[in-house]
Amino acid sequence: MSFASHDSATKQSAGNAITAEDIREGGSKAPEDVARYALYLGDDALMLAQRLGWWIARAPELEEDIALANIALDLLGHARFFLTYAGSAWGKTEDDLAYFRDEEEFRSCRLVEQENGDFGQTIARQLIFSFYQYELYRRLVRSSDPTLAAIAEKALKEVEYHQDHASQWILRLGLGTEESKRRVQDGLHYMWPYVDELFHDDELIESLGDVAVLPSSLRADFDRRIAEILDEAGLDVPDVAGAYGGDRSGEFSEQRGHILAEMQVLARQHPGATW
Amino acid sequence: MSFASHDSATKQSAGNAITAEDIREGGSKAPEDVARYALYLGDDALMLAQRLGWWIARAPELEEDIALANIALDLLGHARFFLTYAGSAWGKTEDDLAYFRDEEEFRSCRLVEQENGDFGQTIARQLIFSFYQYELYRRLVRSSDPTLAAIAEKALKEVEYHQDHASQWILRLGLGTEESKRRVQDGLHYMWPYVDELFHDDELIESLGDVAVLPSSLRADFDRRIAEILDEAGLDVPDVAGAYGGDRSGEFSEQRGHILAEMQVLARQHPGATW
Repeated sequence: MSFASHDSATKQSAGNAITAEDIREGGSKAPEDVARYALYLGDDALMLAQRLGWWIARAPELEEDIALANIALDLLGHARFFLTYAGSAWGKTEDDLAYFRDEEEFRSCRLVEQENGDFGQTIARQLIFSFYQYELYRRLVRSSDPTLAAIAEKALKEVEYHQDHASQWILRLGLGTEESKRRVQDGLHYMWPYVDELFHDDELIESLGDVAVLPSSLRADFDRRIAEILDEAGLDVPDVAGAYGGDRSGEFSEQRGHILAEMQVLARQHPGATW
Repeated sequence: MSFASHDSATKQSAGNAITAEDIREGGSKAPEDVARYALYLGDDALMLAQRLGWWIARAPELEEDIALANIALDLLGHARFFLTYAGSAWGKTEDDLAYFRDEEEFRSCRLVEQENGDFGQTIARQLIFSFYQYELYRRLVRSSDPTLAAIAEKALKEVEYHQDHASQWILRLGLGTEESKRRVQDGLHYMWPYVDELFHDDELIESLGDVAVLPSSLRADFDRRIAEILDEAGLDVPDVAGAYGGDRSGEFSEQRGHILAEMQVLARQHPGATW
């Protein structure tokens, strides 16, 4: 049973270019290597959605509860698209991939798995990730794979808002009180070791040619735009080394297990059932 | 700083009859007794939103994660309207009322404070509450207080979806496996003692005349429609006594404190700051 029509009715997202159902029912089967790339994109969105969902009852303002929850929902939507498409290569559903893969099978970057910390730390992660995603998706809309291009086009509009949201908070915190400035600067410092990894080219991506976007090609624009917004907010670009590792098929953060434990428990207790 | 324009852009709710900003800036000041009534309505929505938000990372399907989170967001939106309007009577903001009232000052009913339990228990609560809210709001649209009427009109459209969502799950669980049927029947049994309270007329509501809706006037329609859907789902209307108490200014559930602890901690640690 599908509640998709209900979801979109409640959410009323204008300009729904595609739905997960379109991908499922459209029958476009992802080639194996494209599916593996789609996991990179989908797992990033899935993990960050779980992290942001935590804030739904805990943000410092009711308005902010709603804003962060909306961003989490957008990301869950992107994750569903990418995982549905990836699953088509192996005869698996989005739920199979979200709930029944083990820790080492996820392909998310470590940044999105990092702990929420305080609000400043969460906003630091949002700034980094939304600026990265913006550069990625605005190029992925020209992917030679039409499904990836369509997902990127839909996601890009939402990521523009995520960027805007993070930017406004960075300015508000950076130009706010001594404490808010200190906390958001600490948050940036905490997250910065996981930045390099976002721009790491690996063999899979290199082999995909026009289907994918080379992460290293995003770096210059990312660096320039991050430097601009941090400068405007009176904050410093952290000067810290990248964390050891940084390959999506290698190291992963110890936090990943905690996120998955929470996310997967219900589906695994009653596989195939509603529970 | 307001992120309302961002929120509605991301959420794209068509047919936004009003916004919390309209209420704040429109300058319609609630009379004291109307404000007290608005707290009943707003606190119900606020508490249930917090409870449902828990599911954002834990539902048995990704689609369901999104559906429950959307419902939580709708309810948070309603809560903001009612609390903003209530606060106008006392020069308080929605955040003052959400984060800086003590346990005994909330006016929510006990049903919405009950624990999520398993998915069946949550759906049982959703069925009861959305059917109740539907009967309430479809009458409140004719309130002689234009602000309450406008909020009800906006909320009613969303509650229709909440009702539909709960109904579909009740059917799916009731007509599903033996286990799913047992669990949702147990959930109904668990929640049923808190039904009577929803239809309790008190002095405040009686004194408000055409401004409010008499809870007792909703009961017959509620009972009839609940009996129909449960019958269709092969489930029984529980035969259990109402819980002791049941006055919004008297008893409240022990769970209320847990919900508030989580919701208020951040705002209270740093009153007036962003944290």
